[in-house]
Amino acid sequence: MPVNYVTPAPQALYPVAGIRLGLAEAGIRKANRRDLTLLALDPGCSVAGVFTQNRFCAAPVQLCRSHLESGSGIRALVINTGVANAGTGELGLQVAQQTCAAVAKLLGVEANQVLPFSTGVILEPLPVDRLIAGLPRCIEDLQADHWHAAAHGIMTTDTVAKAVSRKLEINGTRVTLTGISKGAGMIKPNMATLLGFLATDAGIPESLLKQWVREVADESFNCITVDGDTSTNDSFILIATGQSGVEFVDALSPGYTVLREALISVALELAQAIIRDAEGATKFITIAVEGGLTRDECKQVGYAIGHSPLVKTAFFASDPNLGRILAAIGYAGIMDLDVENVQVWLGAGGEEILVAEKGGRAASYREEEGVRIMLSSEITVRIDLGRGKANCKIYSCDFSYEYVKINADYRS
Amino acid sequence: MPVNYVTPAPQALYPVAGIRLGLAEAGIRKANRRDLTLLALDPGCSVAGVFTQNRFCAAPVQLCRSHLESGSGIRALVINTGVANAGTGELGLQVAQQTCAAVAKLLGVEANQVLPFSTGVILEPLPVDRLIAGLPRCIEDLQADHWHAAAHGIMTTDTVAKAVSRKLEINGTRVTLTGISKGAGMIKPNMATLLGFLATDAGIPESLLKQWVREVADESFNCITVDGDTSTNDSFILIATGQSGVEFVDALSPGYTVLREALISVALELAQAIIRDAEGATKFITIAVEGGLTRDECKQVGYAIGHSPLVKTAFFASDPNLGRILAAIGYAGIMDLDVENVQVWLGAGGEEILVAEKGGRAASYREEEGVRIMLSSEITVRIDLGRGKANCKIYSCDFSYEYVKINADYRS
Repeated sequence: MPVNYVTPAPQALYPVAGIRLGLAEAGIRKANRRDLTLLALDPGCSVAGVFTQNRFCAAPVQLCRSHLESGSGIRALVINTGVANAGTGELGLQVAQQTCAAVAKLLGVEANQVLPFSTGVILEPLPVDRLIAGLPRCIEDLQADHWHAAAHGIMTTDTVAKAVSRKLEINGTRVTLTGISKGAGMIKPNMATLLGFLATDAGIPESLLKQWVREVADESFNCITVDGDTSTNDSFILIATGQSGVEFVDALSPGYTVLREALISVALELAQAIIRDAEGATKFITIAVEGGLTRDECKQVGYAIGHSPLVKTAFFASDPNLGRILAAIGYAGIMDLDVENVQVWLGAGGEEILVAEKGGRAASYREEEGVRIMLSSEITVRIDLGRGKANCKIYSCDFSYEYVKINADYRS
Repeated sequence: MPVNYVTPAPQALYPVAGIRLGLAEAGIRKANRRDLTLLALDPGCSVAGVFTQNRFCAAPVQLCRSHLESGSGIRALVINTGVANAGTGELGLQVAQQTCAAVAKLLGVEANQVLPFSTGVILEPLPVDRLIAGLPRCIEDLQADHWHAAAHGIMTTDTVAKAVSRKLEINGTRVTLTGISKGAGMIKPNMATLLGFLATDAGIPESLLKQWVREVADESFNCITVDGDTSTNDSFILIATGQSGVEFVDALSPGYTVLREALISVALELAQAIIRDAEGATKFITIAVEGGLTRDECKQVGYAIGHSPLVKTAFFASDPNLGRILAAIGYAGIMDLDVENVQVWLGAGGEEILVAEKGGRAASYREEEGVRIMLSSEITVRIDLGRGKANCKIYSCDFSYEYVKINADYRS
């Protein structure tokens, strides 16, 4: 059960002019589920992506990087669930190439105009014959309003499909943003998460889109953690079809800031949906770190708290075991941190209480107030490091029996 | 239930000439348990220690550092369980000082000749009056053969007391090594762990002991992880009483290597006992990383595997989900790692099988063999990074429902 998240209805996910989506049951790993998703892009779309920094990155991630670098003009994205095609060596690369070639042939484009994505079990060979056999049915199914189905198509251990859609007016013209994401475990994206796709009908040149995809990821998918495990397949893709008629050339284009902020906001909602649906999660935790010298050191502190199994089990138990939070701040790696200047607050539902200052528990803190806040399903831990002006927010969840159960069962 | 570990019988823990130990029920946090332990040292002992790098380090850790640096000649160690006296600010320092002063007065020594240690809940005030009231009974109880009782006295969530004792002959003289340790959760020591005490009746000058305590910790307590949480109170102390008559001056002293290796071996057993008794552990995992450019990068890989909740839950389930191990190697932070050269083996009971090579699953690997090895209670994951000659071993455990249960219940 996700924490305060419901998939939007199909009609609430607006089509993005220039993109059609089609699904099929290819039987990649399980029967009776639409496990193959194709996005067909009109000519002229800009596409940019960021990918996992995991050295064992998946074969499709390697091909995505190379096809995006080739400047070929991307025309299709093909996504399978069930098998990650990671840790599959040379054979993995071959089947990813075969997948691209098959899509290209059916659409009448080149293989390097196709981006492949896989998600699921690592180290298993991808049944490429079944995948390729399913492609014609994907093409028959192509429709502009299939975002809802696609959000379901890319799920693995997710319990809900994740999608966000928004319309805004820029320079008097309606611009649409629609995105989908998946992921529930092995989540500590380092560049992007497995998998996020965000499209707009605004026109953005690829040079600018390349910069934006990093900036957007850095404020959204790169700020979440479930278990600290950086996946082999993380990919976040931005697509700009240009069909709304609104064009952006650079940071001086009118409406630049509005669109950039909207992209970040939609990406953040998609990223947060992954945390809300994290394996076994019962609580959504925001860790707001302020007063750092650099954003990086704020992130270090945020991740130390967000990864700590002790902090996460205390949240699960609604136990304001604040010492565990202080311990995590202390071992986060800021070797010259003066703990005398650190302040920590716990907040929920608009209320916030100071819990620690001057190296210890705040004099005004009352355990019963801590308990009341810890019982909420949405909790913010705010930390002021007292040494600078940088800040960041990291999004995480608690750690429950259910996490262990899901991950002790996943392959069976 | 610890994994293949039984506390030695009292008579198997040899006294170390020059050290007497006494315990008392001080009622620090719970009634009816001996929660206060005193070690009284004869004059002339050398003492050296390493302590947590956590910035929220406990008040007693701060005093230990300062008393050791003062070169005062340590005469006593006082250890309470129940309350960690960490995250307690200025008041925490005051009560730790009062503790030292009270011990010093009773023993007729100076306050800076006393090292204080605390373990238990963070952020709670230490009930120093009850502690001081218990000290006279500790002194009445002082005996050279109370190591077994002391090993029990320092426990918190430990389910077994941890102690190792050994006699060896150096230069024709009998030398004794006896040590105790505690810890089961919040275990990822960075310098040392909470708490390890290792004593020998060999004579070692403090200048040499200071060097050895780091080297010994680096090969033992600094190679274990339960949950990646570096505690606020980690302390590892080496004591050399010199009463055996065997003296070491420097690396050229006869028997130097024998004693050094024995110290490392005893410390390693004490450190491993912590993993065997880790919260909720059902398996003892050795992660042997070889072929690295540096020992540090080998440790990075070892810890990435040892910390991964996904790897740990797979071990709990006896599921050879090798992809999770590859993913952890891949995100360990060696950015120029060539995965083509990485080899991974799984081993247990003297048997070892190659499971991954050339970026993917080994051709010879059979799932049923992987499952058979994963069912063992002692498993070794061996990794050859294929890029150098450095190596290390990290010791870890699996991640079970019981870990969540223990840590969702700890304070209640």
